[in-house]
Amino acid sequence: MTLQTPRGTRDLVPEEMEKRNRIIDIIRKTYESYGFLPLETPAFESWELLSKKGGGGDAIKDEIYYFKDKSGRELALRFDLTVPLSRFIATNPQIAKPFKRYQIGRVWRYDRPQAGRFREFEQADIDIIGSASMEADAECIAAVSDVLKSLGLKNFVIRVNNRKILNSMIKSLNLEKKAKDIFRILDKMEKAGENETTEELKKIDKNAVRIMDMIRAGFAKLDKKLEGMNELSQLMEACKRYGLQIKPDLALVRGLDYYTGSIFEISAGGGIGSIAGGGGYDNLIGTLGKQETPAVGISIGIDRLSDVLKPQNAGKKNVFIAMVKEDLRSDVLALATKLRKAGIVAINDVSEKGLRKQLDYVNAYDIPWVVFVGPEEVKTKKYTVRNMKTGKEERLDETKILALLK
Amino acid sequence: MTLQTPRGTRDLVPEEMEKRNRIIDIIRKTYESYGFLPLETPAFESWELLSKKGGGGDAIKDEIYYFKDKSGRELALRFDLTVPLSRFIATNPQIAKPFKRYQIGRVWRYDRPQAGRFREFEQADIDIIGSASMEADAECIAAVSDVLKSLGLKNFVIRVNNRKILNSMIKSLNLEKKAKDIFRILDKMEKAGENETTEELKKIDKNAVRIMDMIRAGFAKLDKKLEGMNELSQLMEACKRYGLQIKPDLALVRGLDYYTGSIFEISAGGGIGSIAGGGGYDNLIGTLGKQETPAVGISIGIDRLSDVLKPQNAGKKNVFIAMVKEDLRSDVLALATKLRKAGIVAINDVSEKGLRKQLDYVNAYDIPWVVFVGPEEVKTKKYTVRNMKTGKEERLDETKILALLK
Repeated sequence: MTLQTPRGTRDLVPEEMEKRNRIIDIIRKTYESYGFLPLETPAFESWELLSKKGGGGDAIKDEIYYFKDKSGRELALRFDLTVPLSRFIATNPQIAKPFKRYQIGRVWRYDRPQAGRFREFEQADIDIIGSASMEADAECIAAVSDVLKSLGLKNFVIRVNNRKILNSMIKSLNLEKKAKDIFRILDKMEKAGENETTEELKKIDKNAVRIMDMIRAGFAKLDKKLEGMNELSQLMEACKRYGLQIKPDLALVRGLDYYTGSIFEISAGGGIGSIAGGGGYDNLIGTLGKQETPAVGISIGIDRLSDVLKPQNAGKKNVFIAMVKEDLRSDVLALATKLRKAGIVAINDVSEKGLRKQLDYVNAYDIPWVVFVGPEEVKTKKYTVRNMKTGKEERLDETKILALLK
Repeated sequence: MTLQTPRGTRDLVPEEMEKRNRIIDIIRKTYESYGFLPLETPAFESWELLSKKGGGGDAIKDEIYYFKDKSGRELALRFDLTVPLSRFIATNPQIAKPFKRYQIGRVWRYDRPQAGRFREFEQADIDIIGSASMEADAECIAAVSDVLKSLGLKNFVIRVNNRKILNSMIKSLNLEKKAKDIFRILDKMEKAGENETTEELKKIDKNAVRIMDMIRAGFAKLDKKLEGMNELSQLMEACKRYGLQIKPDLALVRGLDYYTGSIFEISAGGGIGSIAGGGGYDNLIGTLGKQETPAVGISIGIDRLSDVLKPQNAGKKNVFIAMVKEDLRSDVLALATKLRKAGIVAINDVSEKGLRKQLDYVNAYDIPWVVFVGPEEVKTKKYTVRNMKTGKEERLDETKILALLK
C-alpha cells in the first residue's frame, strides 16, 4: 500500500503552516490595501483552454496534469492562475475595467522535482486587467515589494525587461521563427552560465549568438527608438515614484509564452532564485474572448518565499489549562472558554488523562504557559500559573491571567 | 473552445470571496483557540489509498476523480480531508497524542451536480487523534458550534447518534451482512421520507423494516446496556458541560464507511440541510499503519455555510485617491501609501485616465469615499473628502483623513 505522498508533493506540517499562514495573511492584507479583489477559480480547467497556444502553450504543455472525468471531458489541473483569470475575463466582458484581482492558490506542474521545487506549489497573484499604462505594471511590483518588506525581507532585487525589446533584437537578426527556442535558452542562462548558453544558441542558428553580444552591451547601446524601449523607461519612471529600485536586465526572459510587454522578476539574495515574477500579457484575453484587453500581473511563489523566511514562534502565548482532578472538568472548561473568547489559545485535556500525562502533552507541544485548576484554586478563584520556560509560578485571578496572556 | 468552468465547478467572484474569507478567518481563529494546529496535505493522493475499503470505500469509490501521472502512477483527487490525515498519522506515528489538527481546503467528488452542491467544494475540518474519550468528540462539536455562533447563526440543530448502537440494532436482526446497504438507505431518509425508506428496506430484507420501528420508538426504548449506549450518554454529559443542546437521533447515519463510534451532524434551519458533520473513526488509521489509533473529527462545509450567511458589506471604508491632474501622480501615491500603511484600502488610478473616468471606476466598484488631490489640495495639505453615499464634502488634513477612515 502506497502511503507516501505522490512524487513531487508533500504534507505541510504545523510549523510550516504557521509560517505560511502568517505569510498569506500579510499578502492578503497588502494586496487588499491596493484595492485588489479576491477571486477563486477551479483547480482544474478544460484541457483545451490550458493547452492552448499563446496561453501556457508549448513551453508548459508537457508539464500539465491531464485527466478525463467519468463523462469523458478532457480536463487538466491548472498550471498557473493567469490563464484561468483570462478565461474568467473573456467570459465576463461586462466587468468594469481596470479589474484588479488577487488569487492565492495551488497550481500543479509535472516538472522534474528538485530541492525546494515541487509539482504542487502555491502562488499568490495580483493582476490588473484593462490598463495599458505602465502605472499598472509599477503598482504590481510595488504591492509585491510591500509584501516582502512587511515580511522583513531586505536585499531583494527587482529586475525588469520588455519582451518587445527582445523581439526587436531577434527581428534585427532575422530570427523571428526561432524566437521561442531562443527565449527558452536565455531563460536558463542564470543556471547554465554564459558559455553553455552561447553553445546552445549556436545550435539554433549561427546568428543567434549575436544576441549574447547585445545582452552584454546592455540597454545603453540599444536604439532608444526600438519598440519597447519607451515602455521600459516609462516603467522605470513609474517605479521611481514608488521609491522602488529596479534593475533593467536584457537577459531576463521568463519562461511562459504569453508575455508580450514588461517582464519582471524579484529574487532574494543568496542564490535562492526567483521568489516572484510576472509581466504584461496583452494578447491572451483577446485570443480567448472577443475583446483585446491589456493585462499585467505578478505572482509570488509562496513555497520559495517560505523557504527564505525563518519561523517566528516568539510571542506565542498559548496556555494549557491543567485539570488537577477529573471532577473539576467543568471548572477547567469554564476558564478555557473565557480565555478563548478573549482571543487566547487555551488548551485542555480531552483524553481523561491524569495531571502528569497532561504535562507530558504541554512539553511535547512546547506550550509556554500552564494554569492549574485544583480544588484550592476553584475555591479561592486564584489559579496557579506556571511559566514553562522559567519555571516561575504565581497565583493569579482571572483578570490578571487575561492581562498576562493577552 | 470550451470557456466554461468544468461541469460541477464554478468561479468564486469577489463578493462571494469576501464573505468566504471572513468565514474562514473566523473558523481559523476559533479552531486555533482550542489548540488545533494547521496541517495541509496534497490535493491528490495515491488511488490505492483513496479507494481503500474502510476508507471512503464503496460508498465513495465511484465519485473519485481518478487519473494517472505521466509516469503511470495511479492518483486521485482527495474526496475528503480525513483519509489524507489518517495517512499522515499512519506514516508519522511518532507524533505526540492527542494530536489536534485543523485543515481548510478543497475536495472533489464526481457527484451529480445539484443546486448548491458542487463537484469541487471546500471543507474546514478539525480532528483529534489518539483520544478514546468522548471529551474529544464534545470538543469538536463545541468548536464548530463556537464558529457558527461567531458567524451570527442561531437555531442550528446538533444531532448525534452512535454507529455502535446502529450496528447492535442490525445485529439483533441478524442483518450484519447487509449493514452497509441499510446505512445507505437510512442516510437518505431525510430526503426520501419514511415511506420510501421503508419500501427500500423491504427490498433488502423483510426483517430490515423492523429498523424503522426501532428508530420510531427512539433511544428510550433501547436496552441501556446495548453497545454504544454508554458512549452516547457520555457524549451527552460532555456536551452539557459546554452548554451545548444536542439532539439524539437514531435515524442519523452519515454516508461515509469509516465511522465506528459517535456520529454527528449540524444543520441550519429552513431545509438547507447539513452544514457540518463528523464522527469517530477508530479503525481507519490502524488499517493504514501499524498502530490502532482512536480518532474523531468534524467537517464544516464552507459552500453550504456561505449560502446560509448574508453578505456583510457594512463598515467597508475603502477610499479612492482621485488625481485631478496627471502631474500630481506623485502626490496621489504619497497619500495612498500613507493610508495603506495605516491599514486602509486606498485605491488610485493606474490607467492614466482623467478625473471623470476615475469617478466612473469609483461608482462601478461602489467605493464609499473619495479624496481629491488637486493643485490647491497639495499646496494647502488639506484634501477634499467626499462621502459617496451622502455626497457631503469636507476639507481635511492627513491626520483627520486617517481618523475618519480607520
